[in-house]
Amino acid sequence: MTHFSELDTPAVLIDLDRADANLKKAQAAADKAGIALRPHIKTHKLPFFAKRQVELGAVGITVQKLGEAEVMADAGLSDLLLTFNIIGAAKLQRLKALHERVTIRTVADSAACVAGLAGTFTDPARPLGVFVECDTGMGRCGVQSPTAALDLARGIIAAPGLAFAGLMTYPAAGKYQAAAQWLADAKALFASENVDLPTITTGGTPDIWHMDEAARVATEYRPGTYIYMDRSQVAAGAADFDDCALTVLATVVSRPTETRVIIDAGSKALTSDLLGLTGHGHVVEYPDAKVVGLSEEHGTLDVSACATKPEIGDSIRIIPNHCCPVTNLFDRINLIRNGELVETVAVAARGRVD
Amino acid sequence: MTHFSELDTPAVLIDLDRADANLKKAQAAADKAGIALRPHIKTHKLPFFAKRQVELGAVGITVQKLGEAEVMADAGLSDLLLTFNIIGAAKLQRLKALHERVTIRTVADSAACVAGLAGTFTDPARPLGVFVECDTGMGRCGVQSPTAALDLARGIIAAPGLAFAGLMTYPAAGKYQAAAQWLADAKALFASENVDLPTITTGGTPDIWHMDEAARVATEYRPGTYIYMDRSQVAAGAADFDDCALTVLATVVSRPTETRVIIDAGSKALTSDLLGLTGHGHVVEYPDAKVVGLSEEHGTLDVSACATKPEIGDSIRIIPNHCCPVTNLFDRINLIRNGELVETVAVAARGRVD
Repeated sequence: MTHFSELDTPAVLIDLDRADANLKKAQAAADKAGIALRPHIKTHKLPFFAKRQVELGAVGITVQKLGEAEVMADAGLSDLLLTFNIIGAAKLQRLKALHERVTIRTVADSAACVAGLAGTFTDPARPLGVFVECDTGMGRCGVQSPTAALDLARGIIAAPGLAFAGLMTYPAAGKYQAAAQWLADAKALFASENVDLPTITTGGTPDIWHMDEAARVATEYRPGTYIYMDRSQVAAGAADFDDCALTVLATVVSRPTETRVIIDAGSKALTSDLLGLTGHGHVVEYPDAKVVGLSEEHGTLDVSACATKPEIGDSIRIIPNHCCPVTNLFDRINLIRNGELVETVAVAARGRVD
Repeated sequence: MTHFSELDTPAVLIDLDRADANLKKAQAAADKAGIALRPHIKTHKLPFFAKRQVELGAVGITVQKLGEAEVMADAGLSDLLLTFNIIGAAKLQRLKALHERVTIRTVADSAACVAGLAGTFTDPARPLGVFVECDTGMGRCGVQSPTAALDLARGIIAAPGLAFAGLMTYPAAGKYQAAAQWLADAKALFASENVDLPTITTGGTPDIWHMDEAARVATEYRPGTYIYMDRSQVAAGAADFDDCALTVLATVVSRPTETRVIIDAGSKALTSDLLGLTGHGHVVEYPDAKVVGLSEEHGTLDVSACATKPEIGDSIRIIPNHCCPVTNLFDRINLIRNGELVETVAVAARGRVD
């Protein structure tokens, strides 16, 4: 048996029991709310966790890039939603190849995107399902109004090789009520025009425990981070630190002053993501320590507030601000149960950026 | 021939002529200043560029982690400086294995670090060269005073299997004069105590064009970013945008409003590193565009100030705030000359975080 503290650092640790508890809790909440769960695999990037999510009741998975879809399809996942506009001949051909072997649907928020899809998918016997992406407050992709959503849906419906799948949004964190109102307005408009809305799909983890409210209009929920949780989700009220399943194990490599501690995990391990927070993570063993700075390979801790202070050679665990990009930085992660290493696994969909 | 614009996105492009010009310019400046150049390979992570740096006159290379040292040693680089405290039995054994096959030296800033090295390297016939790392203003690792540097140097000198190599610092950007004063004070102290200082090594790219001033006290300079340059170096006055050799090629995938453009490069392509800047990069084709937001796979541009605006399907190039972590995010990068793809190569030392 190898205790996690014996692992070379920096290293990503996944507490399997915590991850599974998070999956079960969310599936139970979705079941209770009467909403389908379609987890986003960008957080873990691991087929076995995707399969576990489906085993627990998820209707399928969500992916953000074709590369992630390819990895998941190769691993046997068969129902995928790709929530990214596919633009350009090369990517359209990759999507077509996926469509020929699994159930995959995608999104569009422009006539240009629909035109590309319509020109590539032309078989009415096997249409590609396409959602209209709606900007319900996030300020990223998406049509800007229910009327624009209806217009674009009609463009999809008019394409023989496409099937209109419904509406998709990624709501701004904490603004699920505004997003729900947007979707409700759209639903009423579509109903008044007799346009069927098979699915209304929303997310994500910050508001996951309000799934019952989302379920008043949405039929599907796409959380990602909930499997591991992180410091930003604790700040959002969606988790406690005791729910966090992903930590970065680091070693104290320097103690230049009484209050400054340097660890061997920097932005190449924790990322620079702040997500509106101050500091770069929560130190499990020293909750009063502040991760005040990161360079690529060094993390700088201010341990002024710690009664006992970490010494050179000590190992500590950090709950990162944002767990999803952390798993993208490591070729391998360590699955842990009761403090012991169960297995070290390759992060199958790491680096699948296109 | 493949023009870069035909590559699937997001993708990293390296302009070979610009990179080589940057290497030559720095080597010429070092030669003129009479200071040795020991480039840091963390920026490119590529053996062929490391070899080119040595070919142009560098005395060896700098690496930040053992994993990087192992990749470079495997590729035939034979003179390495590892500027990171090596702590713990596993890493000490990896360092020992490297020491048996190449010239590698390292740093220490504590008696604990020296004790680990002294317990592992015990052969006076083949001692390990060890620098004392000095905190000359960066506020990261390093002894806090010249007196502390002298004390630690004496600990290294007292260890039969270690050889005191000199002083190493990474100065805070823009504070090279304070760093030089610190080193000058230390040099005077060491001289007064008759302790030889074989090498005084400093860096980095933000102050690279002040190498002549660094050379008044330092004997070696360790720049990294200078090969590619980036937006932060332009802000620091060390480069112009026309010197920047690394760009991230992205495609416009959405244009939700008149002034908002969404590209397929987010923090998984550009990183979240701000380095004190506002915005996440410089758009080559649309210099008036602002990269106002990044999520993992989406970049959000405000194109209000652009007379002509990019359309869905257009490809654009972004000079990132910080090029070093960008090369850590891509398995492969594309070498470009005169706009044409020369070769796509694996980033050999990507992900070597330990």
